[in-house]
Formats: sequence, structure tokens, C-alpha cells
Amino acid sequence: MAKILKDPGVGYKSNRNAQRIIVNGQSNVKHINRTKTIDDLYTYLIHIGWLQFFGYVVFSYLIINIFFAGLYLLVGVQHFKTSSGTTFQDFLQLFFFSAQTITTVGYGVLAPKGVVAGLLSSFEALVGLLSFSFITGLLYGRFSKPKAKIQFSKNIIIREFEDQKALMFRMMNKRTNLMIEPELNAVMNITEKNSSGEFQRSFYKLKLQRNKIMYLPTMWTVVHKIDKASPLEKYTDEELKNLEVEIYILFKYHEEAFNQTLYQLHSYDFNCLKINYKFGPSYTFDEEGRTVIDHDVLDDLIEINSILKQS
Amino acid sequence: MAKILKDPGVGYKSNRNAQRIIVNGQSNVKHINRTKTIDDLYTYLIHIGWLQFFGYVVFSYLIINIFFAGLYLLVGVQHFKTSSGTTFQDFLQLFFFSAQTITTVGYGVLAPKGVVAGLLSSFEALVGLLSFSFITGLLYGRFSKPKAKIQFSKNIIIREFEDQKALMFRMMNKRTNLMIEPELNAVMNITEKNSSGEFQRSFYKLKLQRNKIMYLPTMWTVVHKIDKASPLEKYTDEELKNLEVEIYILFKYHEEAFNQTLYQLHSYDFNCLKINYKFGPSYTFDEEGRTVIDHDVLDDLIEINSILKQS
Amino acid sequence: MAKILKDPGVGYKSNRNAQRIIVNGQSNVKHINRTKTIDDLYTYLIHIGWLQFFGYVVFSYLIINIFFAGLYLLVGVQHFKTSSGTTFQDFLQLFFFSAQTITTVGYGVLAPKGVVAGLLSSFEALVGLLSFSFITGLLYGRFSKPKAKIQFSKNIIIREFEDQKALMFRMMNKRTNLMIEPELNAVMNITEKNSSGEFQRSFYKLKLQRNKIMYLPTMWTVVHKIDKASPLEKYTDEELKNLEVEIYILFKYHEEAFNQTLYQLHSYDFNCLKINYKFGPSYTFDEEGRTVIDHDVLDDLIEINSILKQS
Amino acid sequence: MAKILKDPGVGYKSNRNAQRIIVNGQSNVKHINRTKTIDDLYTYLIHIGWLQFFGYVVFSYLIINIFFAGLYLLVGVQHFKTSSGTTFQDFLQLFFFSAQTITTVGYGVLAPKGVVAGLLSSFEALVGLLSFSFITGLLYGRFSKPKAKIQFSKNIIIREFEDQKALMFRMMNKRTNLMIEPELNAVMNITEKNSSGEFQRSFYKLKLQRNKIMYLPTMWTVVHKIDKASPLEKYTDEELKNLEVEIYILFKYHEEAFNQTLYQLHSYDFNCLKINYKFGPSYTFDEEGRTVIDHDVLDDLIEINSILKQS
Repeated sequence: MAKILKDPGVGYKSNRNAQRIIVNGQSNVKHINRTKTIDDLYTYLIHIGWLQFFGYVVFSYLIINIFFAGLYLLVGVQHFKTSSGTTFQDFLQLFFFSAQTITTVGYGVLAPKGVVAGLLSSFEALVGLLSFSFITGLLYGRFSKPKAKIQFSKNIIIREFEDQKALMFRMMNKRTNLMIEPELNAVMNITEKNSSGEFQRSFYKLKLQRNKIMYLPTMWTVVHKIDKASPLEKYTDEELKNLEVEIYILFKYHEEAFNQTLYQLHSYDFNCLKINYKFGPSYTFDEEGRTVIDHDVLDDLIEINSILKQS
Repeated sequence: MAKILKDPGVGYKSNRNAQRIIVNGQSNVKHINRTKTIDDLYTYLIHIGWLQFFGYVVFSYLIINIFFAGLYLLVGVQHFKTSSGTTFQDFLQLFFFSAQTITTVGYGVLAPKGVVAGLLSSFEALVGLLSFSFITGLLYGRFSKPKAKIQFSKNIIIREFEDQKALMFRMMNKRTNLMIEPELNAVMNITEKNSSGEFQRSFYKLKLQRNKIMYLPTMWTVVHKIDKASPLEKYTDEELKNLEVEIYILFKYHEEAFNQTLYQLHSYDFNCLKINYKFGPSYTFDEEGRTVIDHDVLDDLIEINSILKQS
Repeated sequence: MAKILKDPGVGYKSNRNAQRIIVNGQSNVKHINRTKTIDDLYTYLIHIGWLQFFGYVVFSYLIINIFFAGLYLLVGVQHFKTSSGTTFQDFLQLFFFSAQTITTVGYGVLAPKGVVAGLLSSFEALVGLLSFSFITGLLYGRFSKPKAKIQFSKNIIIREFEDQKALMFRMMNKRTNLMIEPELNAVMNITEKNSSGEFQRSFYKLKLQRNKIMYLPTMWTVVHKIDKASPLEKYTDEELKNLEVEIYILFKYHEEAFNQTLYQLHSYDFNCLKINYKFGPSYTFDEEGRTVIDHDVLDDLIEINSILKQS
Repeated sequence: MAKILKDPGVGYKSNRNAQRIIVNGQSNVKHINRTKTIDDLYTYLIHIGWLQFFGYVVFSYLIINIFFAGLYLLVGVQHFKTSSGTTFQDFLQLFFFSAQTITTVGYGVLAPKGVVAGLLSSFEALVGLLSFSFITGLLYGRFSKPKAKIQFSKNIIIREFEDQKALMFRMMNKRTNLMIEPELNAVMNITEKNSSGEFQRSFYKLKLQRNKIMYLPTMWTVVHKIDKASPLEKYTDEELKNLEVEIYILFKYHEEAFNQTLYQLHSYDFNCLKINYKFGPSYTFDEEGRTVIDHDVLDDLIEINSILKQS
């Protein structure tokens, strides 16, 4: 008999069928009334794309220079240079002065005269250095932050395997490193309507053929045998196809590129299920006998024509 | 019978009732005769608030420029510019020269002439670069330092649960990430006066229904069943309310935002105890079936009207 | 009897004899159809040699200055300085102006006049600061990235040891630190032709006398006793010499220099096997009784003249 | 009976009595024929004291400016400024020009004219930025490198404890943080002359009353009971005093200040042994009931006048 797990924080019952809590490896939970802090800004700037990041940098650079150019204009253009006549011309020159100050280029053709101009530009140079210190930290943070780059197969399959039915999915490292000490844990959630019409959830730890390996050069095909102890054992293929099942996965491995243990979340539901299919080969050999791993074949499926035994 | 633990470093007996050693997740221990090092300065500057941090930066910037301006005045203003007549005017100009040097702006309108002025300003520029290197490190350190942001419920409750009394508290991640592999260990300290009038402390490892989970999308309600093995089993509700109890908690989980295992300390005493209450719901669902977690409901309590069984 | 392991991701059978998947501690797997990202650039620049790294830096510095000098020439040399007459002379001066801008030196003898020159040079200064922020991160990343510096002996030996045959290899830390909590796991792969002429692979976990130590000041000689449980027990010395064997090693230890747990992969095949040899001494003592470890003796072998017992 | 451990890499026998391999928490092993790399330079600059570090920085700054000033003198002082007449005066001015270039201050009073001067100063500015990038990394590395700051008591004691003899030592965190999950492992090495006059070493894992705690606010007194299983049980107090014993300790705990698990090595020999002493109290309470830990009492010993039982 399959052993039911205690509630891992998502409840046993609900009067509506809830969405998955992990979608695309990200939490699908909505947070309300959360206090935001300055650390959230850092985390945000670390996670956005490169284009967006540099967009923000250039945009901030423009805004801050416009701001200081405005201030300098208020102080009086004559404290920086002889006026060019039009305010717009003066503003532009002060914008350049601001840029030369904040980047600490300081050519000196434009230079502050008098106390207020001197104080403001001294302050702007400080602001500039602090900003670029912050950007240095962000750039380093963006590059050095360890990110798991594990890709999971789009489908899960159920096929005959070693005289039994087995559920399988597979994964690979999108980096060229081997996965060191990969370890996978999975929980299966089966939702069924009970007699009172409520959605009743049952959670099971998914027993795997192996859940930890020394290291893995190619793809890892994870195998759950549908034996007497499996919660799936009592269903026919037809029932399996229509069953509400979610599989929550926590995958952990040591990533050589960062020398850190990385975690990746993933989830499947049974919309991804293919019965009577098997995965294509995980690797091939080239002429010199070197193992070749093709990053495009992860999702390859091959139909099996033999009849699955109903165990 | 509850099993008494060996002393975890805080002693069995005392002739006065001691304060808790963890308050608000921080050590409440007083250190005397401790040697301070330059590393303490770094740690201090990493932990203070942002306002205070920038306050220190601006203040140091002023002080260091005043210091160098003073030095330059001693050397003689004529080595930097033609004197403006008043010493204060000269000092101000030298202050700006110092700021332009330390930030490496170096407009050049003010520039050192002669050996002493040249040496001093060369040295100031070096000081400037080193200082901003240090600030770069501090800023990065402040942002990248992993901080656990776990919030614990204000109260602990005792309620009837699965035909038994149980002690409960709960916690949530103030970040939007799931808590990966959360693990909680707790020690309970009961202080009672013995026959000789001394405060006698007994320590017990708090047995929990679950102390490790794969991952947790919402709040975690930690449950200690008050069964035969519990040190609380022998007390009535009235006695519990007046009992001197401290619960020391070590919570550990993997934080995705930093890809590190974080630790958080916490402690409760029985002033936080509410008997015959239960926690409000940990999560709700929105119209689309998404799980919603409200950061404001962590402390919500609901009174239970039924009579607790005296087990 | 030796217990056969499940396939660690490299298959049981093949119609050709495959190359080792670990060569010199690096993955020997070929990746095709892999999507490259900007993070690969960072990883690349972190791992190349110092000469190559500085080569790239100087080369990029030249290219970027040539590019901006070209742009400035298009804008018109008169916006920066009075023309020197020849275009090449002007280009050189603009190259210097570009260098003075991107490094934020900004002497000011050359300085932008007019809107386009002002905008372009403001942008170049920004580019400069961002580039040097990036280089700061790279330099720190290059130095602080933890690297295991474990060296393995060139040969593996089989010799008589404690009344049995034993397979041995040894390793040392190329740093001067002790290895803290070193731990070694190994898998042995024996490839034999089966009756149908296919190469049949069998994998065995290699049982070691000790696979974890508290800490280790000198070299570590790893010992696998060839007893009844060893997959090598059934072969004679002559057969061993010709056997297709690969040993895959995962070595893990705590490196004090970085305060991190480091991993190192290694592999041997039986071309490295020497039978009836022993390793030279791992350490000696100097006159003051200090333990001395000579980094040149790791591979030292001494022939044993006695006859190995055929157990 | 005490169980003898396998050789942890330091040999069973020697014809001279060897020094300890850990002294003051550092490896006392001498390395010869070791290849040095540029990474050793980084590690060196990370570990030296602050005074020495800043000494190197200032010294390098002088040397590099003297080097470039010399180069500029060779190129010709007229490419930077009108000559002052004396070579020494010119050299000084070029030294200042170099300093203004390498720090990117670039006042512009001194500025390069001509191709060679332009190229050289462009290169120097690049060198400057790279150097300060490197120093930024070093400063951050120096501060952020996790360092265990555990102090061990100078002495080990043997005293009567719970009706038995016990060996004890204690330790504390020199930081103000609690030690989280402290764990201690120790190996004892007893060296005795055997019948053939050789020094014979025996290693024993030291069994401790507790070797892991949840967290520890004060000092940790480590207790090894000298019972039947202890290798020390067979010796009288007199024999113990003259016994050649080394205790090698590996201590590991989670340091909140860095959020990392830190390791510290330590060793004792029996020259530190005090028999019939006990440690002074680990902590006191102040008037408000707060626990007070005095960093000066770690080594406090109190003589016990009672007679130790010869078990």
C-alpha cells in the first residue's frame, strides 16, 4: 500500500481545484500585504535580463545628469562657464559638466567657481563614485550568482520497464559540466473528488529506483516503478490519463562552475503524461569513441507498440 | 517520560531567574573584556541601516576633505591657486580641491604646484581610491550578505489536535521564495524552584510532528504533541499558564534568493502562550485557483469554544 | 561476490569501446546543439590563463579606443582640438582623447566642444566605468573562485598488503593547507567483450579501507583490498594487466584557503597500472622533528621483489 | 578497551620523536619542491596583517610611479611640460604626472603631448584602473573571508567528574555571536617507546560526552570521560603527567556573521595538562539577569583539593 504523507503546507481539502504551486521552476504563490525593502531592489536588479539592466543604467545616468544640470542652472551658469546666451545651450553644457563630474572625468574646461557650485559638484562626484560602486557590486552579483541550469523533459512517460510499469522523466545540465552528486526528491499529489464533492488531496513521497548518483555525464532518467507500493498501481492506463496528478520535484546537485550546491524546483502534471512511449537515446558516440550529448534530444519520445502488461 | 537533556551551555541552577539568551532572534548575552579588531568595523558597517550607512559615508567625506584642506592650507594656498584674500575663502577652495582630488575628478582649475603639494595630493588620490574600493566592498557585502527573513508568529498556542493537546507556533518567509528543505530544532527549558528555593532548569529536546519538509510554499505550523513523552504532559492548563518556560529554536532552510542555507534563531517564553486558540488559515485561493499568502495573517488567532480534554 | 551497480548514466553496452568520460579531471563529453549565453562568457573569462586574460583586456582597450576615435573623427576633430593637419595625426589625438575619457583621466587639454562631442564623450565615460566595474568583478572572480588543487599519482599500483593483494593510488594537496575531512568515492568500470562480441560494461562501487578522514597533513594513499568482494579478485596478474578498467573518482574535501568544500574529479585506466610496486615514503622528518612533505615524490615508485601471493 | 585507529597519514613509527603537525591552529608541515602560482600571491595578500597590506600598497604606488616617471623622462620632459632646468625637478614633476595619471585624477596642468607620451600615459591609466580593481577585490576578499575566531583554553585538565576521572578543555567564540551547531571531533595520539627503542604511535578517536550542540551562548567545556573505553584509563596520574600525548581537534560550527560553516584546527599536548584542577565559571549574571560572558576568564583554573579516585 502507498503511504500517505502529512500535508506539506498546501492542505488536504478545498472546494475548488487549485493551481499548481510550482510553474516553470518558479513559485506560483501570490503574496499580498508584503513589506518591500531595499534588498528587494537588489534582488530585482540581479534577476532582470541584461538588456533591461543596461537600459536602467543608461536611463538613470540620463536622469541623474538632468537633475544635476537643473540644479546647476538654478545656481547660475556663470559659476561654471560664460553663458552661451540661450538657456537650452547652457543646460546642455551643464549636463555635460554633470556627466564629467559624476564619471570623475573632469576635463576642467567646465569647472565650478564659487562655494555653492563647488559644494554641489563635490557632492555629485561622491554620488557618482557610490553609484558606480553599487553597479560594480550588481555586475559581480549578476555574474557570480549561482544559477541551476537544469532542463527537465517536457513529458513524463509510463512504459513497461523490467517486467513492470514505470513512470519516467529525464533531465540534463545545460552547462557542459558533469552534474556532481545529483540528488532528486519528489512528492506526488493526487487530487480526487470525495463523496461530498470536495477536492481531496493525497500526498505521497515518490519512491525512485535511484535518487542519488556520484556524478552524471549525460542525461538522468528518473525511474519510479509502479509496484504494489506505488500510489498509481491501482489505476488502469485510461484512468491514469484522466487522473489529477501533480509531481513536485526538488533537485539538488553540485555545480562545478560555481563550486556550490544548487537547487532546482520543478513540477509536472499529468497533462504531460505519455503512456507507452520511451525516451530516445541519451547520448551517442562519435568516431573517436567520445561520448556525445545532443542538447536537442532531451524531449525525444519513441512510441512503443507492444502492449503494456496490466500488473 | 520526558528525557532531560544535558546542559547546552547555560547551566542547571541559579539563585536568580535569568533572562532569555535569545531575544528577537539575537543573542542577548553580554560580552565583557572582548578584544575588538578591524573586522568588527566591517561587520558593524555591514549590519547598520542604510540611512546610518550613508550618513557615515557623507560624514567621513566631509571630515577627510576638511583634514586635507587644512593640510593644504598649512603648505600654503599659493601652491594650489592665487589666494582669494581671506583664509576662509582659501580654505573653501582647498576643500574643493581636496574633494576633486579624492574623487579623482581633477578638473585642473585648482592643481598642485611644487613638491609638497604634489606629494600630498598624490597621496590623497591614493587614499581616495582605496576608500572607494572599501566602499565598493561594503556595498556589495551589504547587499549580498544572505539574511534569513523568517517571521515567527507572536504567540504559541495550546489546543486540542487529533484527540490530544498540542503546542503550536508558525512561521513564514518574508521573501516571495518557497522555503527549500526547511528544518526546525527546538529545545524547551522549564525553570522551577526546587525545595531549597533555587531556580532549577531542565532542558528537553522538543519532539515535533515533522521537523523537516521538502519545500514549503506557505506558512509552516510547527506541532509538538503533548503526549506521554512531553515534558508538558503533567501540567494542567492553569499550571501551564504560570509555568516558566522558554523555547529555543534553530531554524534552517535553503534560500533560493542567495542559494545558501540560512539559519534563524528564535525564542518564545510562555508569556506568549494562548490556550484554547487556533491559528487562522495559512493561505486562501483566488478566483483563478492560485494559492494566496497574506503576510498580515501570520499572527491571526481564533478562539476555540469547545472544552479541552484533560488527557 | 562483487555487487554490480546500476548504470550511472553511461550505458551497459556499446558496439565500440568508448573513451573515458573524465580525462585530466575534466569532462570529456562532447556537447552539441547547446545554446550559449552571456554567462558562458563570464565563465570563459574566469577560467582562461592570466596572460590570455590580460591580452584580452589590452586588446579590448585598443579596439574600443579605436572605435571611439573613429566616431570622434566623424564628428569632426575641431570639436575636440584644433586640427593638426593630417588625418592620421588627428586620429591619434582623438585616440588619446578617447583613452583619457574611458579611463576618466580627463586631463582637459583635449576636451569636447559642442553637443554631439559632449554626448558621445559622456557616453564613453559611462562605458568606461561599466567596463572597469566588469573587470573588477572578473578579477575578484578569478582570484576568489575556489579551485581544488589536488594532484593524483600518475600510477595505480597492485601490491601485497596485509597478507592480501591491494590496489592503491595516492594524492596530495598542492596547497600548503591540510586537507580537512577529505572523502573519496570511486566507481570501477570493467569492460569485457561478451559472447556476441559487444563491449559489456560492469560498474562497481570501489570498496576502500577508509574513505573519509578527519584531516590529513601529508599524502593520502587510498587502499582497495582485493578480497572476495572485489571485482578484481578473479583475475591473475597477467589478466589484470590486459583488463579494460576505468576508475572514476570523486574527491571532496574542505579547503581552508577558501573555507569551502571543494570537489575534484579524476579517473584512471589500467594503462597506469603497475603490479608489484609500492609508493615511496609520503613524508620525512627534518632535524627538528618537523614533518616534511616533498611535492616531487608523489609519483615515486619502488619495485617489490618478493612474489605476490595468488590469494 | 580503547580501539586503535588506522593511521591518519602521519605514520605509526619513527626513530625520532616528531613535532606536532598542528601548532596554533596552523599546519606545522614543511613543504618542499612546491610550485608557486599567482593564486598564492592573492592568498598571501589576503592573509597578511593590515599594516603590512597598506605598506605594500603605498610601496607599490611609489615604485610604479617612479618607474613611469623614469619612462617619461626617457621620452623627454618637453612632451609633458616645459623643463624646470634640473633633471631632479623634472623627474619630480613627471612623478606627479604619473600619480595623476595612474589615479585618473588628471588635473591637466601636466598633460601628454605627442604620440609616445600619449600612448604611454594611456597605458598607465589602464594599469592604474586594473590595479585598483585588483585592490578592490583584495580589500573585499580580506574583509569577507570567513575566519573562525574560536579560542581554546590554554590548558587541558583532568579532574574527578560524575564519579569518574575526566579530561576537559574548553573554548569560546571571540565574536559576540552564538556558535550555531558547534561540532567537535578529536583524535588522540599516544607515543610510547617500544621494546626496540622506536617511538610507536597509537591513534584513538576521542570519545566525548557530547560532540554536537544546537547552539551555544557561552563557552563550551568538552568532556572526555576516562572510563574503560578510554586509552588513558590504564595510566596513573603520575604516568599521565609524563605521557607523550597529542590531541588533534577539528572544530566546526556555523558562524552567523558570515553565514558559513567554519572550521578550526587545534592541538594540545600533555605539557598543557593540569591534574586536579577545574575551570572557573563560564558565565555570570548581571543585575538584570542577563548572561555575561567574560572573555578574560577562558583560561581560569581552580585547584581542587579533594583526592582524585584512582579508578
